[in-house]
Amino acid sequence: MPQKIIRLTVSDVRFPTSLEQHGSDAMHTDPDYSVAYVVIETDQGMPGYGLTFTVGRGTEIVVCAVEALSALVVGKSLEEIVSDFRGFYRLLTSDGQMRWIGPEKGVIQLATAAVLNAVWDLWARSEGKPLWKLLVDMDPRKLISCIDFRYITDALTEQEALDILVKAQMGKQQRVDQMLKEGYPAYTTSCAWLGYSDQLLKQLCTDALNDGWTKFKVKVGADLEDDIRRCSLIRQMIGPNNTLMIDANQRWDVGEAITWVTRLAEYKPLWIEEPTSPDDILGHAAISKALAPLGIGVATGEQCHNRVMFKQFLQASALQFVQIDSCRLGSVNENLAVLLMAHKFKVPVCPHAGGVGLCELVQHLILFDYISVSASLDNRMCEFVDHLHEHFKSPVVIQNAHYMPPKDPGYSCEMLQSSVQRHQYPQGQVWKKLQGQ
Amino acid sequence: MPQKIIRLTVSDVRFPTSLEQHGSDAMHTDPDYSVAYVVIETDQGMPGYGLTFTVGRGTEIVVCAVEALSALVVGKSLEEIVSDFRGFYRLLTSDGQMRWIGPEKGVIQLATAAVLNAVWDLWARSEGKPLWKLLVDMDPRKLISCIDFRYITDALTEQEALDILVKAQMGKQQRVDQMLKEGYPAYTTSCAWLGYSDQLLKQLCTDALNDGWTKFKVKVGADLEDDIRRCSLIRQMIGPNNTLMIDANQRWDVGEAITWVTRLAEYKPLWIEEPTSPDDILGHAAISKALAPLGIGVATGEQCHNRVMFKQFLQASALQFVQIDSCRLGSVNENLAVLLMAHKFKVPVCPHAGGVGLCELVQHLILFDYISVSASLDNRMCEFVDHLHEHFKSPVVIQNAHYMPPKDPGYSCEMLQSSVQRHQYPQGQVWKKLQGQ
Repeated sequence: MPQKIIRLTVSDVRFPTSLEQHGSDAMHTDPDYSVAYVVIETDQGMPGYGLTFTVGRGTEIVVCAVEALSALVVGKSLEEIVSDFRGFYRLLTSDGQMRWIGPEKGVIQLATAAVLNAVWDLWARSEGKPLWKLLVDMDPRKLISCIDFRYITDALTEQEALDILVKAQMGKQQRVDQMLKEGYPAYTTSCAWLGYSDQLLKQLCTDALNDGWTKFKVKVGADLEDDIRRCSLIRQMIGPNNTLMIDANQRWDVGEAITWVTRLAEYKPLWIEEPTSPDDILGHAAISKALAPLGIGVATGEQCHNRVMFKQFLQASALQFVQIDSCRLGSVNENLAVLLMAHKFKVPVCPHAGGVGLCELVQHLILFDYISVSASLDNRMCEFVDHLHEHFKSPVVIQNAHYMPPKDPGYSCEMLQSSVQRHQYPQGQVWKKLQGQ
Repeated sequence: MPQKIIRLTVSDVRFPTSLEQHGSDAMHTDPDYSVAYVVIETDQGMPGYGLTFTVGRGTEIVVCAVEALSALVVGKSLEEIVSDFRGFYRLLTSDGQMRWIGPEKGVIQLATAAVLNAVWDLWARSEGKPLWKLLVDMDPRKLISCIDFRYITDALTEQEALDILVKAQMGKQQRVDQMLKEGYPAYTTSCAWLGYSDQLLKQLCTDALNDGWTKFKVKVGADLEDDIRRCSLIRQMIGPNNTLMIDANQRWDVGEAITWVTRLAEYKPLWIEEPTSPDDILGHAAISKALAPLGIGVATGEQCHNRVMFKQFLQASALQFVQIDSCRLGSVNENLAVLLMAHKFKVPVCPHAGGVGLCELVQHLILFDYISVSASLDNRMCEFVDHLHEHFKSPVVIQNAHYMPPKDPGYSCEMLQSSVQRHQYPQGQVWKKLQGQ
């Protein structure tokens, strides 16, 4: 019997992370990690949970956008949606009136992500599988039918995408077994937020090394002398053989990025992340070209707003690491397109995570990438940040600096009801207390 | 005495244009032309009016975003804002929390445009000048101080921008006089919306020719045989010496765009507008290259979301006509940056207009472009659509297919109170009636 979606609710849930400078970087100096949290429900009582990540103010705008999209979802059956998921994706992203305020970017795309993440969660739950397993078990033709190829056929045709998936069927079961045993390699960003003191940085770094971490990211971009001191400190702590990445969060213009990173080259960073505007494909290409002789790659993607932008970053050799985001792009559907394009262009995918729920979500996508697309771990790792996992019903499991594949059915972003209630903005208990009420 | 902004209100105002297929194109099949309409007010009783254009559903999301930005505006004085307008622009576009849901794109940038359009209107009113005259009279250094050069210095430095403005001081008064006498050349899009019948198209075309129009734009992209018939019809009507432009509103992928437009080449369109995704810089570059031998240029910009994108379109030779939009970019501030970059790259600016209030607003910018930046009318013209002007207090004046420079102080987007009231969504009389209430 088809399951009809009869209800969609959305909540503005915020965590006061700015109080302790968690998540602070050169452009986001006081983030309050937040989500627009979506719950859908079918007439058979099956729930689907989805979210998109935000950093405080403005979450209410995304909530408003989710409410606008809900009319396109409620009343549809899950079967109807997944039997033509490409069409449903197009319905949400190309509504003849709403596409004007995007298209496929910013608030409306974040809202699309939240809604579709909930639909994918519902689908995976209906099949009784974690999302990564739903994807891994899915027939390649069915996977392809979830992707909107509009605007990317000059870089990747449907046939090419299918060929990639069919080819990667070989050895799939071994990779599943390997992942279940070893997990997917991760790196940590928890040690070196920009607002942390040197002492805290040292302490966190020591702890992380003891816990088996070998790959570390440090925030840079506010002050060059500070960056030199912090990079030197962390390189000293981790030694020459561990991996260091640096992240400027869009702080520079093109010329400035090249000069600044050149000054940090002696600390041997693997990549510079978000050196400039996330929209500047040609700028990233110029930076990539200038830094290649220093052995430093360019990584970007957490604010790359759709597959059309990723296509161009790849076409222009503007990045050496693709950082997909589970909540910025249009959910699994659009991420599938990007994973397949990255594979065609031979660029490794190293997902963005952290925030609230991003680790929980994106682990599914990168497991699928390894098992069913890339079949490689070379130069690949998934970001990990150790904050706010306690608010999730099935939080990520990290063992020896690896993501262990989730086992519970769904997309892992169901939050604890008590967490949602207490952190609702502005009426939740946590916020009332902070406002002295 | 400084004028303090003490209030900001925003309304969701919609016109049921979809009932008659006005504004219909290949991607926006049923637009209800709408605005998020902003009124600011100072403690001295001076108002400022601003808006951003939308096409129906989703306007409430932009309204929500304007409300979020209002906290950054209310309480500031006009003098404080314009004494560091670059800083104020940065404050709105780079709020440490809200930039996450952009940055500088989509809903939040549309809201920024609405708010800043009202601030510019207030400034022009305070000086007792129409906006174009405020700009034309302004010292070049002051103009430059309104622009945020972040992320564009690799294409245009402050010094280069200043040099362009200083150089164009020569002959300025003659160009002011010329504009006051002759007006700025316009083209019409009113004749050939996609939803119009051939008969209506013929009638409107005949009327337009009688009114002195010589440049016509026709919507294409839904069906090739239809397009051939319509282009043939309109070329027959206007004769070989008048100008024809075609507009696909992002309907195609890159390869398809080239094939389709090649089939329409015999009707000698000056440009193909929005052949593909507005985000696809490299795609537009490929299309430009393929169509150049046919003498057809590429035009785009109405959904180009910020100066960083325009910078790359220019760097990549991806367009031959820059179509700025008064409500998509971050108001006058960001449009100044684009006008100056276009001049440096020697690409003519032909603004997007139509909708609700876009003609009223953008005429000021293109007058400034001619008088103070480009000093040229070669290959330049401003779009005109003859809808909904009756709702404005100082509607555009068209004479002999030219925009006559506005004389009233401000930015020309004050709407009639009665129009705003009647068209408020959903509670206005017009909407109540349509919903049978």
